[in-house]
This record gives sequence, structure tokens and C-alpha cells, in this order.
Amino acid sequence: MAIANQAKNREQREQLPALKNKAYFNYGGQGPMPAQALAAIQKTFASIQEMGPFSSKTFGWSMEQTEKTRVAIATELGAPPETITFTENTTIGCNIALWGIDWQPGDRILLTDCEHPGIIATVQEIQRRFGVEMSVCPIMDTLNQGNPAAVIAEHLHPNTRLVVLSHILWNTGQVLPLAEIVKVCHNSKGATKVLVDAAQSVGVLPLNLTEIGVDFYAFTGHKWLCGPEGTGGFYLHPDARESLNPTFIGWRGVVQDEVGNPASWKPGGLQFEVATSAYPLYAGLLEAIAFHNQWGTAEERYQRILELSQYLWQKLADSPGIECLRTSPPQSGLVSFQLDKKRLDSGATHLSLVQFLEKQNYLVRLILNPNCVRACVHYFTEESEIDRLVDMISSF
Amino acid sequence: MAIANQAKNREQREQLPALKNKAYFNYGGQGPMPAQALAAIQKTFASIQEMGPFSSKTFGWSMEQTEKTRVAIATELGAPPETITFTENTTIGCNIALWGIDWQPGDRILLTDCEHPGIIATVQEIQRRFGVEMSVCPIMDTLNQGNPAAVIAEHLHPNTRLVVLSHILWNTGQVLPLAEIVKVCHNSKGATKVLVDAAQSVGVLPLNLTEIGVDFYAFTGHKWLCGPEGTGGFYLHPDARESLNPTFIGWRGVVQDEVGNPASWKPGGLQFEVATSAYPLYAGLLEAIAFHNQWGTAEERYQRILELSQYLWQKLADSPGIECLRTSPPQSGLVSFQLDKKRLDSGATHLSLVQFLEKQNYLVRLILNPNCVRACVHYFTEESEIDRLVDMISSF
Repeated sequence: MAIANQAKNREQREQLPALKNKAYFNYGGQGPMPAQALAAIQKTFASIQEMGPFSSKTFGWSMEQTEKTRVAIATELGAPPETITFTENTTIGCNIALWGIDWQPGDRILLTDCEHPGIIATVQEIQRRFGVEMSVCPIMDTLNQGNPAAVIAEHLHPNTRLVVLSHILWNTGQVLPLAEIVKVCHNSKGATKVLVDAAQSVGVLPLNLTEIGVDFYAFTGHKWLCGPEGTGGFYLHPDARESLNPTFIGWRGVVQDEVGNPASWKPGGLQFEVATSAYPLYAGLLEAIAFHNQWGTAEERYQRILELSQYLWQKLADSPGIECLRTSPPQSGLVSFQLDKKRLDSGATHLSLVQFLEKQNYLVRLILNPNCVRACVHYFTEESEIDRLVDMISSF
Repeated sequence: MAIANQAKNREQREQLPALKNKAYFNYGGQGPMPAQALAAIQKTFASIQEMGPFSSKTFGWSMEQTEKTRVAIATELGAPPETITFTENTTIGCNIALWGIDWQPGDRILLTDCEHPGIIATVQEIQRRFGVEMSVCPIMDTLNQGNPAAVIAEHLHPNTRLVVLSHILWNTGQVLPLAEIVKVCHNSKGATKVLVDAAQSVGVLPLNLTEIGVDFYAFTGHKWLCGPEGTGGFYLHPDARESLNPTFIGWRGVVQDEVGNPASWKPGGLQFEVATSAYPLYAGLLEAIAFHNQWGTAEERYQRILELSQYLWQKLADSPGIECLRTSPPQSGLVSFQLDKKRLDSGATHLSLVQFLEKQNYLVRLILNPNCVRACVHYFTEESEIDRLVDMISSF
């Protein structure tokens, strides 16, 4: 990387207190918050106390701040602001879609075999309550060969009303060809809709959800966007609006008549918002998004992530005793790898490797299926940091 | 109040930055946060950055902090900690109960005529989806005469599976005789369960939920408890456990097997928790609860609230042109009043009174049904503050 870029990067990293005392590779778990985001949260809490906390002035101001954050999120997603619902996290967004569909007995839901346990548990409960059938298609095997869209196409049934998948698989880091999959699903006999777990893609991929045409896209602010835990969102494509009803409901999503009775739903994404949230966190997320845009565009950030994950992947692939899951450079910031058979046979485990690294202040995480270790790089990761990680892994 | 008590009160108020620049009477909307709660939030955000943010150390520490807050909440409610679910707010808790019941066509839900629009909208959607019948009973009329438990008893039907009511009515401040109502419902033909909107009661009434025997009790941390917005909880009586299934579901409520698949529900209240929340806010709520207990017991706080609300009620009742909704002293910190017919006929409105007061930094709120103004007192409200409020109202 050129010297000017190194300086820019160092400046960016200096704004991230979490990076000061460790080598951090858990962006897919939680992102480090920029100092300006932490400060914005604190300042907003103080402003609310100063203005209210409960007054018409505070309410108007909070709504204005919230809409600013909604616009910033929408810009990152390539979507109109009115398509965005604020949620606490990715999972809530998935639940909004999953419970919002008018399920009929015999309907089918298709999941990939790489979905998060929380989402699987939700689908299982829907299956139990409404007599819906759940099936799973083998996407993990397409990491190095094959076509995920073709696998999904094969598993669609005329009764499949919904496909649930992740844009970036949280275990292997594979990027699914979402636009192609959406086309396959929409053009299928069942005109199947697509719900995306976007926990690993928002803040990584340059996105244009309008162009992709995906129906439901649930994401979080606290991973790759580096916002506070407890912020997230849900995108609903305008064409899919009629297919979804609000489930968890509250004053925030409802228009009241002159005596305070619920009269109709608020327009757009607002109708799925429930009640009082921690509005100061939205200010933190807004600052986190601004922080990234100060460094570069979404496309520039993604390209840098690819450079760095290729660098990490190559170094790991070259290390004796280590095998990367991918046989070609990663398409995202997630790099998953395993100890080779010999080391596993000699009693080493991925858990003990993760624990060993954490003790040395190198933070990576264990994945259970496939059993492996996941290291993440963000655009502000340093090559020297990667060098040190790989050295440390080699010393295990 | 004795001089020693005045000093203690002044000390308490000095810890509440929101009270420094205004006369505050909106505790039923949102409570002012103690400085120690604001500091705890900031400190916890910093600690998480320092430890992680994502590491097994951070996770263990966050869970430990969360359980401390759960115990503090449970103690306030007179309930075992394992009966408590963390939620974002009261409304989410109500939704957990409302969507968790296995509704059958023909089932009935009974609401009082004083419930919050968000809850009404949820029941209406359940009615639409599952063919459940919703009915409403006239409780507002029992503010000054009659027996709310008898009114509810009259409106129970053998198919009534759930009664939804507020422990303290948010519009009139009436305290419903919950233990008596629960007994009436449980002993009814339908063995009706009881869901309580406890937005106005937690942090006001000394509570022993185990003794009361209520099935579901949904509350918030950001009103009378003076914790941060975005914290709340849901109590589920152990005997009612079997009647409820989790609806919105995520990793936080699910036990995973050795390959990460959902295997069973977490025990107790945990099973209704979904995914990542803003854990630092729990630290704020813990400090807010400690702040109140530094001043006095729940019983002492409630008695002081009653003294102050009687003082406010009496002064308002004695003011020309003002009519209190209650004809006897309030049972809670909420005091609702109206301009008399003559003033309303001459064009004055409650909205313009509320706006006039906010301009002078006296914060009260408008209620739409019955159309009135609501002023709240907490245990740390000062008589002199009440005097100034009533003077200001008189000058309108």
C-alpha cells in the first residue's frame, strides 16, 4: 500500500479504541466503534436529558435524528429511506419477515445449510405452528465449485413461498450471487420470495438493493458497520410490501386517530417499528457510517477488504499445518481455516487454538459447522497485523 | 417534610441532570436518568471496546453484568430472576405474551377501555389473523366509583383466554386491584390468564408478583425506574410457562447442540430473548435501580409519591378553572386534570396549555382519551416545584 494510504489508514485506526491493545479479527462478530460514535451516543443521552427527557421538543428532535440515520443506512444499501425499518439486530429483521407472511398449511420454506441457528429455530417454530414444511439445500459444498443459484433452483417447489439465505455465509465467507438467486426465485413456479440474513454483508459489499430486487434484507449495525450493539435494520422491497403484515406491533408503527385509537399503519418501514428504542444509539450508528465514508467509498472499502483477505488467505494457505476452506482467494473479509488432519489427530482443537490466540490478544472465533476458525479483516486491517496473526497461529 | 429528608431529597435531585433546567412532571413518559446510570453506560461501552468488542472474555463479562441487572429487576418485582426476560420496552413484552398463546378461532381477548394504542393494534392484528374475538370493558368509569374487578368479572366469557389491562392506567392514574382481578380471572370458567401493561406501575408500586399470581407482566426501564430508553422486561409466572411459546426467536433464547443447531430453549425468561442487545444499557438500568434504593425502600418511595400526588391533586382541585379527574386523592404518581367547561368553551385547549407550560420549561403531557392533561410526581419531586407548576397553570 502506498505511503499516503498507510497514513490514512493509521489515522482511521487511531479513532478505534478497541484496536489499541490487541490484534482484532472478529469484525464478523462485532465491529470496533469509532471514538466519534461513542461520543455521539454519550452526547445524545445528555441532550435528551437536557431537553426532556420527555417533551415534544425531545420527541421532534429524536425523530429528526432517527431519520438522518435512516437516510445514511439507506444510502449504504442503495435503497430509498422509506424501505428501512429500525430493528435491534439482524435476527429481529428476519423475524419480521418470517412472521409477517400469511402462512398456509403446505407452504414451504427453503433454507441453505449455512444459516444461523436463531433463524433455523424461528423457521422450525413457524413449521410447528402453521404446518409449513422446511427444507434445507446444500450450499456449503459450493464454496469451491458449483453454482449456488442452480442448487437453489433445483430445490424450489411450487409451494416454496420463501427462500432464506445469507448474502455472505457467516461460516465460510462465501458470497452468494444474490441477484441471480433472486431472479431464479421470482421466476419460479411459486414466485418465491427471498429473505436475506445480511449480518455479514452490510458494511462489506457495495450494495444496490433496488437493483438486486431482493424482497427482505435484514442486517445489523454492530458488525461490519462498527456501530453500537442494539442497532440494526430491515429492508422491505416496495413490491413485496403487500406480502407482509406487522407482527410485533406498537405505537411507533401505528397512526392514531383524534382520540388515540389505532387507525392505520405508518407508511413504509415505520410500520414494523414497535415502541421506544435507545435513540442515542442511532446517533452512534450515524457517526460510524460517516467514519467509513471519510476513508473511502463502499467500493473502495470492499476492494481493500479483498486485498487484505487475499493476503491473509495466502499466508494461511502457505503455513504448514493449516488448510483454508477456500481453494481460491476470498470474496469477503471472512477467512475460515482448519488445522490439518495431522494436527487434529495429535489432539489439537480449533477451540484450543482460538483460546490460545485470545490469551495473546489475537481475537478470532470458533465456528462449529464446518468446524473451523474464522478470522476477519476489515479495510483498516494492517498487513503487519496479519503477519503477526499468522506467526502466532504458526507458534501454536 | 423534615429537614433531614429535604437534604436527602436535594442530594437525590442533584444526581439527575435533567432536573437542573426545568420543572419536570413527565415521569410516566420517561424518567430522568441519574448521572451514575449515564456514567455506567459510557463506562460499559468503553470496557467492551477494551476487552473485545467480540471475545469470549467480553461475552462472559456481558452475561455476568446482564444477570446482575436481571436480579435487580426481579427484586423490584418480587419475583425470581429466572422469570424475567429482557426486552426493549413494555410493548415488546406485551407482544411476547400476545403472540405466544396458541390462539384458536372463537377464543376471546378482553381489554379495558384504557389500554395503550399499540396494544390495541396488536390485539386487532391477532383478531384478524386467528379469528379471535376482541371485546372491551368500561373501566375508565370506575375511577371514582364501582369495582373494576366486578366489571371485568361481568365481561368474562367461557372462551375468554386472556384479559389485558394496565396495573396503573396511563390516562387517569387509577390503580387496578390486580390481585383481586387475577383471582377472578383464574377462577372463571375459562381459567382466563392475565396480561398486564406495567409501564406505569414498575418503579411506583411496591410489588410482589409471586404473591399477586399474575401470569404476564410487561414493563419498561425508562419511565419510573429512570433507566435508559431501550430497556424493559417481561415477567412470566412459572405456572403460565406452558401456555406460551416464543415467537420472535434468536440465538439468545436457544440452546445449540455440538454442531450449532438449535436443540432446545434456554430455561426461564431467557428463551424469549432474541439476539444482540445494547448490553451497556443494562448497566445503566442497574445503576438507576440502585439510585432509588439508596433513597429508600419501594414502600417508602411509594408512600412519598402518594404524599406528593395528593399535594398536587389538592392544589389543582382548589384552583379555579381546573377540575381533577379523581374526586379523591390519587393512588399513584399520575394526576390528570382538565380545564373546566367555561374555559374550554372560551377556546382554551389542553394542547395549548401543555404547549404553554413546555415553553416555560414545565413539562406535562396531553392525554387524548379522556382529553386531559397529565402531571406526574416522583418521590423526589419537591413541594415547591408543585407550587410553581400550579401557579403557572393558573397563569394560563
